[in-house]
Amino acid sequence: MRLTRYFLPILKENPREAEIVSHRLMLRAGMIRQQAAGSFSWLPLGKRVLDKICNIIREEQNRAGAQELLMPTIQSAELWRESGRYDDYGKEMLRIQDRHERDMLYGPTNEEMVTDIFRSFVKSYKDLPLNLYHIQWKFRDEVRPRFGVMRSREFLMKDAYSFDLDYEASKAAYNRMFVSYLRTFDRVGMKSIPMRADTGPIGGDLSHEFIILADTGESAVFCHGDFLNLQVPGADVDYANDAAVADIVNAWTTPYAATEEMHDEAAWSAVAADKQVAARGIEVGHIFHFGDKYSKPMGASVTGPDGKEHPVSMGSYGIGPSRLIAAIIEASHDENGIIWPEAVAPFDIALINMKVGDAACDQACDELYAALTAAGKDVLYDDTDQRAGGKFATADLIGLPWQVIVGPRGIAAGEVEVKNRKTGERETMPLTAVAARFGMAA
Amino acid sequence: MRLTRYFLPILKENPREAEIVSHRLMLRAGMIRQQAAGSFSWLPLGKRVLDKICNIIREEQNRAGAQELLMPTIQSAELWRESGRYDDYGKEMLRIQDRHERDMLYGPTNEEMVTDIFRSFVKSYKDLPLNLYHIQWKFRDEVRPRFGVMRSREFLMKDAYSFDLDYEASKAAYNRMFVSYLRTFDRVGMKSIPMRADTGPIGGDLSHEFIILADTGESAVFCHGDFLNLQVPGADVDYANDAAVADIVNAWTTPYAATEEMHDEAAWSAVAADKQVAARGIEVGHIFHFGDKYSKPMGASVTGPDGKEHPVSMGSYGIGPSRLIAAIIEASHDENGIIWPEAVAPFDIALINMKVGDAACDQACDELYAALTAAGKDVLYDDTDQRAGGKFATADLIGLPWQVIVGPRGIAAGEVEVKNRKTGERETMPLTAVAARFGMAA
Repeated sequence: MRLTRYFLPILKENPREAEIVSHRLMLRAGMIRQQAAGSFSWLPLGKRVLDKICNIIREEQNRAGAQELLMPTIQSAELWRESGRYDDYGKEMLRIQDRHERDMLYGPTNEEMVTDIFRSFVKSYKDLPLNLYHIQWKFRDEVRPRFGVMRSREFLMKDAYSFDLDYEASKAAYNRMFVSYLRTFDRVGMKSIPMRADTGPIGGDLSHEFIILADTGESAVFCHGDFLNLQVPGADVDYANDAAVADIVNAWTTPYAATEEMHDEAAWSAVAADKQVAARGIEVGHIFHFGDKYSKPMGASVTGPDGKEHPVSMGSYGIGPSRLIAAIIEASHDENGIIWPEAVAPFDIALINMKVGDAACDQACDELYAALTAAGKDVLYDDTDQRAGGKFATADLIGLPWQVIVGPRGIAAGEVEVKNRKTGERETMPLTAVAARFGMAA
Repeated sequence: MRLTRYFLPILKENPREAEIVSHRLMLRAGMIRQQAAGSFSWLPLGKRVLDKICNIIREEQNRAGAQELLMPTIQSAELWRESGRYDDYGKEMLRIQDRHERDMLYGPTNEEMVTDIFRSFVKSYKDLPLNLYHIQWKFRDEVRPRFGVMRSREFLMKDAYSFDLDYEASKAAYNRMFVSYLRTFDRVGMKSIPMRADTGPIGGDLSHEFIILADTGESAVFCHGDFLNLQVPGADVDYANDAAVADIVNAWTTPYAATEEMHDEAAWSAVAADKQVAARGIEVGHIFHFGDKYSKPMGASVTGPDGKEHPVSMGSYGIGPSRLIAAIIEASHDENGIIWPEAVAPFDIALINMKVGDAACDQACDELYAALTAAGKDVLYDDTDQRAGGKFATADLIGLPWQVIVGPRGIAAGEVEVKNRKTGERETMPLTAVAARFGMAA
């Protein structure tokens, strides 16, 4: 993409309304724009990151056996009256009446609707296990939305729902999602730590939050240092093997880890002092097992091998992709801007032409742009007539992993500079070596 | 995907509520489920089609120079008061109050919001042309939603918005979208005919609908037979060449074509009788040029080359992907079910094991499934213990382009049968020839 044709509204000044660094950097980098309290447009640069994040989530959900569907945003109040949550949910639920004065609501979550889908089609234990997920907009009418997309009212959520015959099978389904979350956060470039959590309004008896460590994190967390060395399961994890999956979960839940709310000073003091990691973290995922909390009142039952009706045992599993993006920025930035992990960067490479209009620079850039693009790299080519300093500032701000810098002096010697955004390391190399540098056949 | 693990709730009976064939077939094929009046979940099979359709739309929007962003579903009423449409829009607009009693609405379209984004960032003609689009859920509170996803209340829409300095540039932007629509509908396997249209509540002075011909179409249309032979522009169309693009539009707007509303008997009678095509059609796209209708009241202006402020000239361009899917089914089905065009089929191949449990059949199917999947084909493997007749009926109903049928008698002779869903043609071939049949190295 040529920057002269790209809608990238960079802000030079720090926006006053942004209280945290991710919000500030997303606004400054032209990723988002606020449309109303707690409501944001994703501008083209932000949309690219959102797509990359969602694709990774999707791949890992599918790998773990979950199936994607798509439920509507607007729900009938009837369903929520069945589960008893319509009155419980309070003012966070955005309630709506249509032209026929029917009570509706903008879904804050989908337990009721997915249970309704399940009960209308699935009648036998033979059709289990089943795990259905979607990635859809949700709305929670927070009193005071803030921190940009970290706590917005309209936000994207991947929510999965598992259905099983009994507790044991349901625990296995929970474990598969647990492992898929470890892999998902690892793939987006983050170290996540699962922590035992409160179940809150979703209900249930077993729940973990996945926390990313970041100095600017919203809450204090306490964990054993061993977490930092635990191996994340590979792409070849055998999700069909319940015991193997349970072993992974066991390894990741044995060392001490707790958010402030669940912190237990006695257990903590048993951790060796040099292994105590007290840090700050951001919740990026939350999984719940809640058994028959919804299936029982809503009549979602299957016939078991015993010929009897059993309310299914359920769990739900959430990741907020929009919130995850903010969390990645909180964990990965410096004073100049964002530092994207390669897997979720909006573009792989910033190609910087220091002197647009100079024939040699223009030609070298055109050739590099064509070669890198043809090789499948996403390149943002800064072909604007801004001065070089401004271009460097923009490239650092938007945080692409690599900068390829083409200037007249270098080109005269047949050379370009390659800068790693994360380490700051610069390398001068022959123009002809750039293709090989990015893993392509020369 | 193995059917034993796939959530595909096929209905054996015709659902009574479905008045048109696409609604009936989408329900029967387990593509959608109604959640409330005019509101549907997209089940896994339907979601796959929706994704394929959206990807084709996206590729053609990008090719024509449009840039993707993503605006929220909930909008502030303030914006609509600026344009004057908040009171005009009537009961079709879903109006909402949040917990602070602020007036909001579920966006039925996005002219106001995108104009607001534009005016806050773009100040100079040098940043034009600009075309921003998104694919996002919309809500229109129809009095009597019906016909399934053909006329639902919550529906997906791709809406693009162009911004230009003057009428001439804006017309060129309109033409680019016109051509990209021709290519989009062609790529999803449909012949579309552009017809001059009323502008309705969007406003403006130039508008075309894109109509797919289908016997079961909602409205009468009249067009010159030459349309059926016009060449759709290739992927190499030069969108940078305004004159070339205008020539294509000219060729596609010269022969007579009109919906019932715009029909002109005098012009029609001038068409040679043997060239008069009177048919039924379904609107699948609508493009509008409306100049400064929104930019003027909302103050979206840029500085021109003359140093003066000019309200930008705008157009908007819509395709309903959910509606398009229904239209494709109306145009492409038979008494046994859906007949998907290859580009949008949820899977490429139905692999049918006629005798699950038979060692030779199971082994042949496992090998075919692995080989076809490894070659990048999307295969739905019917490994259920249903009888063969039921499997054939399901495969015909869900309409995958190819069926590969593996039975014990054929396998004893080293042979399988390959059936083309559209033509019904069957071909018996050696098991070893199947890979080559689907374009793969043997």
